[in-house]
Amino acid sequence: MSGARWPIACRRPVRYHNAMIARKLHHTRYRVNDLERTVRFYKEVLGLGEVRRHKSPRGSELVFLKAPESQELIEICFFPASGPVQVPPDLTHLAFEIDSLEDFGRHLASLGLKYSDGPTLHPGGGGGFAFIDAPEGYEIELIEPSKIQELA
Amino acid sequence: MSGARWPIACRRPVRYHNAMIARKLHHTRYRVNDLERTVRFYKEVLGLGEVRRHKSPRGSELVFLKAPESQELIEICFFPASGPVQVPPDLTHLAFEIDSLEDFGRHLASLGLKYSDGPTLHPGGGGGFAFIDAPEGYEIELIEPSKIQELA
Repeated sequence: MSGARWPIACRRPVRYHNAMIARKLHHTRYRVNDLERTVRFYKEVLGLGEVRRHKSPRGSELVFLKAPESQELIEICFFPASGPVQVPPDLTHLAFEIDSLEDFGRHLASLGLKYSDGPTLHPGGGGGFAFIDAPEGYEIELIEPSKIQELA
Repeated sequence: MSGARWPIACRRPVRYHNAMIARKLHHTRYRVNDLERTVRFYKEVLGLGEVRRHKSPRGSELVFLKAPESQELIEICFFPASGPVQVPPDLTHLAFEIDSLEDFGRHLASLGLKYSDGPTLHPGGGGGFAFIDAPEGYEIELIEPSKIQELA
C-alpha cells in the first residue's frame, strides 16, 4: 500500500512526497443529536452543498457538506451509540469567509436569525468577523476578508 | 462594506457572488489547555506548518497551522478564561490525507506512538483509514486515498 511503489508518472504533480506528512486536510467532523436539523442549517443558513451521505461500517450516519470555494469537507455525523452530544462552551468552531457581514446580516434577518456576537469591523475597509449559533451548541464564525489585502 | 460595490475587474475571478453563501471554509478552531503541547503534536507528528500566531482582541492566544496541500487553516486557541477544556468522546475530529497508512504507522512508531484504531484497509488498493490520539482528548483521522480512484 506504500505510495512509493507507484511510478512518478501516475501521481498528481502537486503531491507532497513525504511519508511523515499529513499533506491535506480532508474534513472536519462534528457529531450531532439531530442530523437533519444541522444539515438544514448548513444548507439554508450558510449555503453549503451536500456532497454525499452514507452509513459507515460501524453504523454511523454521515453527511458530507462543502462550501463552493473549498476542497475541505464538513462531516456531520449521527451515531447515538457514542452517547448524547453536549458541546462544551468555546471548544470549537468553523470559520467561513463571506463577501459582506452587512449583507449576510440581512440574509440572517430574512431567516429570523441574527449574529450572536459582532459584527466586529476593522476600520478602513479592513474586513471583520461575527459569530452565529449553529444547532446543539456549535458555533460558526463568519469572516469578511480585508479589501485592502485583496486589492494589494 | 458590500462586496457588490467593488468593480468586477478588481475581484478574484473564481469568486462566488452571493451574499447568502459562506463561500469558503477558512479554519477549524480547537481550544486547548496547553498551547505548545498541541502545536508541537501537529508539527512533529503530522508535519503541519505554523502559518502565524497572535493574540486576539479579547486576549486569546492563537496559532494557525496548515497542511502543505490545503488552503484551510487549523486554529489552536489558548483562552483559559473560558474554563478548562474537556473534549467529550467522539464529538469531533480532523481528518487528513496521507500517502500511506503503512509508512505513516512506521513514522508513528519512530516517535513511540501508534494508531489508536485501525488501520482499516479497503481491499485491492482501495485505501483505508486509521485514528491517532491528539493531546487533551482530541482525535485525528488519517486517510489513505484509494489508488483506484486516483488512477481512474
